Amino acid sequence: MQKSDGATHRGIYLLDAWYMAAWSETVDAALKPITLLDTPVVLFRTSDGEVRALLDECPHRFAPLSSGKLDGDTVVCGYHGLRFAGSGECVDPRFTEINRTRACVRSFPVIERDAMIWIWMGDADRVDPAGIPDFSFFSDPGRSSFFGYTHVKANYQLETDNLMDLSHLDYVHVGTIGAGATLQGKHSVVQEGRTVHSCWTCNGIECPPQLVPFLQPGDAKVDHWMDMRWDAPALLRLDTGATLAGKPRQDGFFSLQAHFATPETEHTTHYFWGLSVPGPANAMHDVVNAAVRQAFEEEDRPMIESVQQRMGTNEFWAKQPLILAEDAGAIRARRLLDQLIQAECRATE
Amino acid sequence: MQKSDGATHRGIYLLDAWYMAAWSETVDAALKPITLLDTPVVLFRTSDGEVRALLDECPHRFAPLSSGKLDGDTVVCGYHGLRFAGSGECVDPRFTEINRTRACVRSFPVIERDAMIWIWMGDADRVDPAGIPDFSFFSDPGRSSFFGYTHVKANYQLETDNLMDLSHLDYVHVGTIGAGATLQGKHSVVQEGRTVHSCWTCNGIECPPQLVPFLQPGDAKVDHWMDMRWDAPALLRLDTGATLAGKPRQDGFFSLQAHFATPETEHTTHYFWGLSVPGPANAMHDVVNAAVRQAFEEEDRPMIESVQQRMGTNEFWAKQPLILAEDAGAIRARRLLDQLIQAECRATE
Amino acid sequence: MQKSDGATHRGIYLLDAWYMAAWSETVDAALKPITLLDTPVVLFRTSDGEVRALLDECPHRFAPLSSGKLDGDTVVCGYHGLRFAGSGECVDPRFTEINRTRACVRSFPVIERDAMIWIWMGDADRVDPAGIPDFSFFSDPGRSSFFGYTHVKANYQLETDNLMDLSHLDYVHVGTIGAGATLQGKHSVVQEGRTVHSCWTCNGIECPPQLVPFLQPGDAKVDHWMDMRWDAPALLRLDTGATLAGKPRQDGFFSLQAHFATPETEHTTHYFWGLSVPGPANAMHDVVNAAVRQAFEEEDRPMIESVQQRMGTNEFWAKQPLILAEDAGAIRARRLLDQLIQAECRATE
Ligand code: FES
Ligand code: FES
Ligand code: FES
Repeated sequence: MQKSDGATHRGIYLLDAWYMAAWSETVDAALKPITLLDTPVVLFRTSDGEVRALLDECPHRFAPLSSGKLDGDTVVCGYHGLRFAGSGECVDPRFTEINRTRACVRSFPVIERDAMIWIWMGDADRVDPAGIPDFSFFSDPGRSSFFGYTHVKANYQLETDNLMDLSHLDYVHVGTIGAGATLQGKHSVVQEGRTVHSCWTCNGIECPPQLVPFLQPGDAKVDHWMDMRWDAPALLRLDTGATLAGKPRQDGFFSLQAHFATPETEHTTHYFWGLSVPGPANAMHDVVNAAVRQAFEEEDRPMIESVQQRMGTNEFWAKQPLILAEDAGAIRARRLLDQLIQAECRATE
Repeated sequence: MQKSDGATHRGIYLLDAWYMAAWSETVDAALKPITLLDTPVVLFRTSDGEVRALLDECPHRFAPLSSGKLDGDTVVCGYHGLRFAGSGECVDPRFTEINRTRACVRSFPVIERDAMIWIWMGDADRVDPAGIPDFSFFSDPGRSSFFGYTHVKANYQLETDNLMDLSHLDYVHVGTIGAGATLQGKHSVVQEGRTVHSCWTCNGIECPPQLVPFLQPGDAKVDHWMDMRWDAPALLRLDTGATLAGKPRQDGFFSLQAHFATPETEHTTHYFWGLSVPGPANAMHDVVNAAVRQAFEEEDRPMIESVQQRMGTNEFWAKQPLILAEDAGAIRARRLLDQLIQAECRATE
Repeated sequence: MQKSDGATHRGIYLLDAWYMAAWSETVDAALKPITLLDTPVVLFRTSDGEVRALLDECPHRFAPLSSGKLDGDTVVCGYHGLRFAGSGECVDPRFTEINRTRACVRSFPVIERDAMIWIWMGDADRVDPAGIPDFSFFSDPGRSSFFGYTHVKANYQLETDNLMDLSHLDYVHVGTIGAGATLQGKHSVVQEGRTVHSCWTCNGIECPPQLVPFLQPGDAKVDHWMDMRWDAPALLRLDTGATLAGKPRQDGFFSLQAHFATPETEHTTHYFWGLSVPGPANAMHDVVNAAVRQAFEEEDRPMIESVQQRMGTNEFWAKQPLILAEDAGAIRARRLLDQLIQAECRATE
């Protein structure tokens, strides 16, 4: 019932995988176009609140369905009016049930969970709802969350590199969210199955300035941590905070963060980032929100884009990057993703 | 006497054919550059009023001749001053008649007729002045005409698709020049030699709103028609109007239109459109002019360009378009053009 | 100790050659990025005033070093803080002297001479300081100089073509620095080793208007000369002036000029131009400066860029240019450069 366009991208992207497609709050009954893995997709919410995702291309003359309109739960193409259900089925009177099959448009499996909309870009027969890593902290009623989005003109794995090697905080983010603490700490990298952890612990240090307002340590030293978790293809979770030296983490202050690098094309990325902090929303959160937005948008983005410019269309390994100790997490994630993509290629040969 | 650059485009475009290059009123003694079929051309009018077309590239160091100047009827290159006649002949004193041949620039056969300038992009030996379809209504003293131009970032055949399937009026042009009438009508497609007719007749319907001011039908029903004629490569003529139901067409109101999709490059098009209405020019024509300009420029153009974006560099048939009954005219025109291009390739093998 | 990136460009550019990289006055302690022969370079001046040139790409994750900062004479990468000396040596504590070699960044030999910074883009073992042609007039205390820069979207050899065929002055520069004198003169072309001279002498002519203020000839005729010297790859020196007819050149007025076309990429060029006139700087020089800037920037640049547009990615000879007598100098320079590039390819096979 569906035309599959994904096959051409096998080997470039991991297809049988969940990608973060949008924050829940950004999808309503309007037709929302977004390109994912070079594939144009249109998202919308039906009258019963369910999110649907269709190929954003009419099978007739390839008009973007997103330039048409929603009539109830039916998408009407804006060029010659063909009508499609959220399942992708063509429900136009110009087609009978018998000849309708070829007129259908590809639909993509979608799961909405914890304020996020997840899309499966591969074979619908291999959908694995358990394959979405846990980001349930966004649903924790004791916490407040805010969600952001940054468009980045770089391959999504350069975003992973950035996030898995937080030593860049000491250089790129001095003054916003970094202050020289990272290089004072211990860095450990652990792989568990298809998950990679890249963690920094900096015990007994001066409180990083950006945490002072939350911790008010006075002259006391603190223990500071940054625990990054990566799952393929580029789904990252950060647990970062500080507590008075020697005290348990839960006595301190910490934020839980999600960082998703969803490929738009091979050289452009949808970077979704979300933060969750304890307690109800308050004025201090606006300060945090502004600082992280500046860090991700004005500091990381230009740096990552300039790296992409230097790489051009060269492949990462072909550039023979110098490997530093701090790279262990990023390198582990890259190798694991390469293996998963290659395994997927072999499976479909 | 001429360098031929066209050969490289054989198979992509129909070369031995007339293309509409400009409305007469837009060409005067100034050097007017325009790219046609990937080939830079410069148009100008000599002192006796004849239009000339030269390759817009000096044979010396490839400066655009259009950035030079006209000295009488002679084009003077702006870089080092070589001089060319409208025939393409080099008339520079630096060359004698004996060694002048290689210094000539390609000239293109041109015919000016009925307010249009036609150019022959193929082999000058195969020029066929009878091959220009009839648009003499633009010379009818009992009618008024207005001429427009829209640049479209899409392959010219997507413009043909648009014009040969007027069912899009009911979706794309609701509120300007369409109002749901088309799908109520009968559609017939007829091929005569190298001409394809795609005609809609909608008898006994409510008068389409955009025709009410001209027909003032009150409560009476009308017969509405849209007769589109296509000739290769993309020369279209539309006869469209309405009359009180059952009355002859000449008792009603109708416009005669010309639509020309001249390829600029493979993915950009010069879309020339002209309308002719009965009687002297009057205020109502300004309303019509504004409506069609909005329809072609603000409604069709974005739709056609978004289709091109979806197609990218893919070939039309390779995208396996879904064929609807309304497509018959457009498909017939595409197949016929493909045959003509292939025949031209075989003839020159 | 250096990574060599140049090998991929062999055959496109002459690598074992000096290129003009910047006017001395434009390089200070700030990190100055510039792309030369498709290679990103960062220039800076150390605390002892020496100019250094490094590959503007960190060997770690390819961040542009120019987006980092200078710490004394050490370049600190802005992404993860690796430190490099001006020699390219990695001086970061994360590397010991033993494992540091691979962490180094390519450095380029640089010579600062006569207000110019010269860079050697090829093999450092073949550096030839004597290979820089003489432009010592910029150091002449009896003369005043001014320096300009124009970015040109064209291959650098089109700039050479322009400069070696000054007949274009009579067409492109009428009203600024040309006035029909060139075609009245005699043109001679002489090759001496790897140097080509293309000279015009126009004796007993009316004084070219742009020279009248300097020569004040009244009704007297003048002898006018333009002696252009070319050295590979695109280093040009112009000696141009006029004197009362029959008088020695040194009795007249003349400027000495440098014109350097340094490739940025295959289709973009850094065009550096400098003028030297006798005596101390005065108001008249501002007039000259404005005139030449307009000539190079507003007259030559658009013409050369439009030639590049017509050529597209075609190779010059493949376009079969028409050869005029005035071309002799430009053609000689092109053939000589082609030979040098081919010899360099053979030498490294
Ligand atoms: S393109 Fe969608 S109905 Fe024609
Ligand atoms: S480019 Fe036209 S005369 Fe030289
Ligand atoms: S990219 Fe320069 S230190 Fe990492």
